[in-house]
Formats: sequence, structure tokens, C-alpha cells
Amino acid sequence: MSTTDPLHTTAAQARSAELEELIGKDPGRFRVLTGDRPTGRLHLGHYFGTLHNRVRLQDLGVETFVLVADYQVLTDRDIAEHLTEHVEQLVLDYLAIGIDPERSTIFAHSAVPELNQLLLPFLSLVSVSELNRNPTVKDEIAHSRQAAVSGLMFTYPVHQAADILFCKADLVPVGQDQLPHLEITRTVARRFNDRYAQGTPVFPEPEALLSPAPLLLGTDGTKMSKSRGNAIALSADADETARLIRGAKTDAERHITYDPAARPEVSSLVLLAALCEGVEPRAVAEEIGDGGAAALKKRVTESVNTYLAPIRARRAAYAEDRCLVRDALRAGNERARAVAATTLQEVRSAMNAHY
Amino acid sequence: MSTTDPLHTTAAQARSAELEELIGKDPGRFRVLTGDRPTGRLHLGHYFGTLHNRVRLQDLGVETFVLVADYQVLTDRDIAEHLTEHVEQLVLDYLAIGIDPERSTIFAHSAVPELNQLLLPFLSLVSVSELNRNPTVKDEIAHSRQAAVSGLMFTYPVHQAADILFCKADLVPVGQDQLPHLEITRTVARRFNDRYAQGTPVFPEPEALLSPAPLLLGTDGTKMSKSRGNAIALSADADETARLIRGAKTDAERHITYDPAARPEVSSLVLLAALCEGVEPRAVAEEIGDGGAAALKKRVTESVNTYLAPIRARRAAYAEDRCLVRDALRAGNERARAVAATTLQEVRSAMNAHY
Repeated sequence: MSTTDPLHTTAAQARSAELEELIGKDPGRFRVLTGDRPTGRLHLGHYFGTLHNRVRLQDLGVETFVLVADYQVLTDRDIAEHLTEHVEQLVLDYLAIGIDPERSTIFAHSAVPELNQLLLPFLSLVSVSELNRNPTVKDEIAHSRQAAVSGLMFTYPVHQAADILFCKADLVPVGQDQLPHLEITRTVARRFNDRYAQGTPVFPEPEALLSPAPLLLGTDGTKMSKSRGNAIALSADADETARLIRGAKTDAERHITYDPAARPEVSSLVLLAALCEGVEPRAVAEEIGDGGAAALKKRVTESVNTYLAPIRARRAAYAEDRCLVRDALRAGNERARAVAATTLQEVRSAMNAHY
Repeated sequence: MSTTDPLHTTAAQARSAELEELIGKDPGRFRVLTGDRPTGRLHLGHYFGTLHNRVRLQDLGVETFVLVADYQVLTDRDIAEHLTEHVEQLVLDYLAIGIDPERSTIFAHSAVPELNQLLLPFLSLVSVSELNRNPTVKDEIAHSRQAAVSGLMFTYPVHQAADILFCKADLVPVGQDQLPHLEITRTVARRFNDRYAQGTPVFPEPEALLSPAPLLLGTDGTKMSKSRGNAIALSADADETARLIRGAKTDAERHITYDPAARPEVSSLVLLAALCEGVEPRAVAEEIGDGGAAALKKRVTESVNTYLAPIRARRAAYAEDRCLVRDALRAGNERARAVAATTLQEVRSAMNAHY
């Protein structure tokens, strides 16, 4: 279920604009939790959808926690069998795009027992019928390649609450369709505080930070997705990128315009060039004009390859020394554990479970 | 749902007899996990039902882990508000009956993050429909004083699997009605080994050890239960015990016999005296004969008070110095954490989640 209620979206957008202003004034006030499942190499859809925004927040000075949700891929046997490789590739992508392990905390679920323990008291605050109704669970089930819904999938929103609350994140960058996903986390925080922490709340009620997530289509005109083979991975080289863009679907009209509704494939290419160049898509379209699909693809290829060049260089450097990747993750895991241990102690104190 | 399938019970009983023989020969081969929810002071029903058997196993030389399931009482607000007191009273009872913190590991859920983390990978191995069908969940729901089923209650059998498997317990002492409760643990162990630990299983498939659990009724002739006010607590003093037994329900027949089916109240009193004296109930009944209820109650009171005297003395000594109680729990928590951390490392290795 996506929330497409326009009023709701507008209120959330207005609040996000306010939050952005507050971040601009005092970024040190905020803590952000983001993350990904290690399901494969990240691509340009991920990059302009969310990753770019994370780096922006980090660079503004917001304390950022980046979760590698390794426990959430276990039901996919192919991934689970090569978990280390998937996790290292993801961290490699993070480092390549500019997530700075000195400033941001990159960590994995499986490495932070004190975070995972929070699942237990949090599960006591949520009913089975709330989980059954939860849009995150419904999404999980819909996206699952499994026949049966696992207990892990069913309790995922509560695990997510533990992810967000262990570090007391107050901001969670989301796309519009993910707005309802934060609700169980907010409910858990509120119920925990009401029940156990009279007077001095242990947890913030985190807010969604709607990020402008331009919709990039894959080279076949459908949603960009690794499994469809229509995605340009951040780890692709310049030649592969050129080849993918050369094969991208366009339409029969020679004159290039930016009109996402009527011409989704052409407009997505225009948008991609514009995002890489930091200009308006309409300007890109006008400049190409009657150059047609060939000129458009040439422009996109150049823009993407120029934009990705430093990212690829960093990726190659890190890939050459995997120890750096492991060190970054290990340092992040340690930092996350220390934060989680402190929070767990507060939780124990609030619950009178100190013995 | 209680399994009263007689064939099933018979097979389980036969296996338990075999296991007892193996324990007798080589107790060091086995590890036992038992435990309780800290819901109130333990009484004679608990004692002769399970506690006595735990001490017996410990004294035989079986390594014993005793869990204080503090996370499983959170949905009971009255208990949760006085959690520390409930936990300390339970540990006090353990120490009083002879659980030796030097030889056995007494620990609390909330103190062992590495145990709790196992819930996550284990939840991925169990489906929601298996949980819905699980007798433990059905029991939980039936016994719950809550209107809604919490996520914690729903996932309880998987948490129980983590409790048993974190220390690789291979024996779990249970009553006949609890036989099906071990099934999810065995399933989780088997699935984990099949999926992740080709060749060298990480977990044993624990077996039920049926313990002879004589059914003691409360003083009102119904099931002995703290909440019914019909139970003789281990912490009751001699006078309170005498008063409770004096008020116990009997029947109109003067001649005392041991006939649990026809004369449940009288027989339960006879049984209680017999258990305390270590003799056969029929012998006790014959000795009293025409002495009637008064003589029976006098005998029971004396037997119970004699039997409980050393337990009460130990309890009083420990109660005087609560630090001893806390030290025992703290030492147990540390030992359990060390064991859990080792198991978690093995789990991570098996899952290729070492980074």
C-alpha cells in the first residue's frame, strides 16, 4: 500500500521543508538512520533516489548511521549463500559515493546484538493484528519471492523500529511511498516512553524526511532494477555504461522534449543527464532539440561517465584493498555496538531490569 | 493444546527412561536448559513439579542453565512494574532449593543480547502459519490476561528456541503436556543445520526429558496456583504453612486412603506428605488410616515443615544479604553471555556473516 493521499503528502512535504531549514541552521541537532539490504550492486536509480541525499545530509553535518540489513536477506537463498560478498560490495558502493566512515557509521545487523535485543521489548508493545495491518509487512509479503511469509518478514517493522531507535535517530529519509513505514517505529517509541519512561522519554518519535527522489527508468523503460538487467550499476565501467545507454529504449519522435507523462523513456534519459550535470531537464532537452535519440544518448553517456568518474575511481581504489572496506565496516560495527549498548542500558533502567 | 496421545506419551516416556540411564552413566555429556517466568514466589507445586528435578539433574553432574524469562512477563503490567523484585525473589527461591550458582548458570533474558539476537536468524526459518498453528502460541494466548496477542507472545516459541539453542542444551525437562512445545526448537535446529551448517551441525536437536511430575492440588482442591491463594509458597513460614494446610479441603470420609481419581483432595495431601518423606503415598495413607483429616493434616504439616526447614533457612540467609542474590545472577549473566557470544560467532561463521 502506497500512501498517495495528496493531503497527507502535502503535510509531509511541508514538514520536510521545515526540517530541511532546521538542518541548515543546526545540522548537529539531528541524527539520521538509513540503510539498504545487501541484495546486489547499487545503481543510478538508488543513487539519485536516496544515496545522493544521504551524502548530502552527511556533508551538511548531520550524524548519519547507515545500516547494512544483512539479516533481512536471509530468506533469499542466493544472496544468503554469498552474504559476505554482497555485504562488501554494498559497503564498497557506500565508500565510493562518498559516505565517509570517519563521519558516518556503516554497520551490519548481525554485528550489533544490543540493537537486535531491542526487538524483544518492542515486540511486547505491538499486537499481531497491528502487524497484520502494517503496510511494511504487506509490502514485504508482496515483494517476497518466497511462498510462505517468514516470522522475520512478519516482524520486520518492529526490527526496523529497533534499527531506528537504537541510535535515537530523529530523521529517516524516505520516499513518498514509504511514509507509512515509519508509523510502527513512532508507535513503539511513544508506547515505550508512555509505559516505561515517565517524565524523561528514552526515545524520540522519529520524523520522515521526504527527499526529492526523481524517478529514473531502466534502459527498457520499466523501473530500474538490477534483476531486470536494465540498470546502470555504480560499479559499471565507462564502456558498459555507453553500451547500456546505446541500447536504451526511446521513441519514434526525433525532436527531444522533457515530458515524463507522454514520453517516459526519452524523459528519463533527459532527466539522467540533467541530474548528472546539475541542470534542469528542460534545458537539456532544448539543447538537444532535433538531434534525436542518438544525440541524446551521446549526451547522457558523457554526462553519466563524467559524473561517475570520481565515484568509480574511489570504488576501484577501495576494491583493490578490501581491508579498507572491512576496516570501515568493523569500525562502524564497533561504534554502533557502543551506541546500542548505551541505549540498551537506558532501556533496562527504564524497565527496572537492572540486575 | 495438550498432547494426550497415549502412544506419543509412551514413546516419549520410554525415551526419557533411556536418557535417564545415559545421564546416570555419563552426566557430563548433557546440558539442560530450564527456567521460569518471574511471575511470583515459587510454591510446592512448582517444587515437586519441576524444581526438585532440576536440582537432581544438577547434583547428578548435568550442566544446567536456568533462565529467568524476564522479557516474557512484560505484557503483565503489575509484574513489569516490580520486575527487579520479582526477579530477585525467583533467584532467591532457586538458591534456597539448592540450585548452586557455582555449578549452574542462572541468568536473565534481558542480560544476554547475544542470545536474543538469535531470534532474528531463527525467525527467518519459521513461517507465520507455523507460528499460528503452534501449541505454545495457542497456550500463550489462552493463558494471557491481555485482550490482544502481542508480537512477543506470537514469536515466543522462536525465542524459546534461542533460549535452548544458545547454550546447545540437548535436554529440556518438561511435563507431558509440554511435549509439543519443543517441536519448533527442534525444527529451528534442524533447518539451521541443513541450511547453513553442511557437515558440521551447529546445534543439537534437543530432546524432551519427561520428568515424573506428581500433580499436587492447591488447598482448595483445584490446581495449585499463586493467583488462587491455594498454594504453599517455598517462602511461607512454618505457621503460615500450618494454617494453610489446616484450611485445606478434604472430604467426608474419615478413613484415609490414597485414591487420586475418587478422592483428589485427600490424595493430594497424602501425596504431599509422601513426597516430603520420600515414601509411597499408599504407605502414608495406611499409617493414618482412621485418624481422619485431622491426623492427615497434622502429618502433612510436620512433613512439609521438616522438608522445607533447610530450604527456608537458606532462603532466609540469602534474603538477608541481597548482594549474594545479585552476585549469583550477575555471575550467571556473565557466563551465559560468554556462552551465547561463542554460539553467535559460530552462527555468524555458518551464515558467512563475518565482517
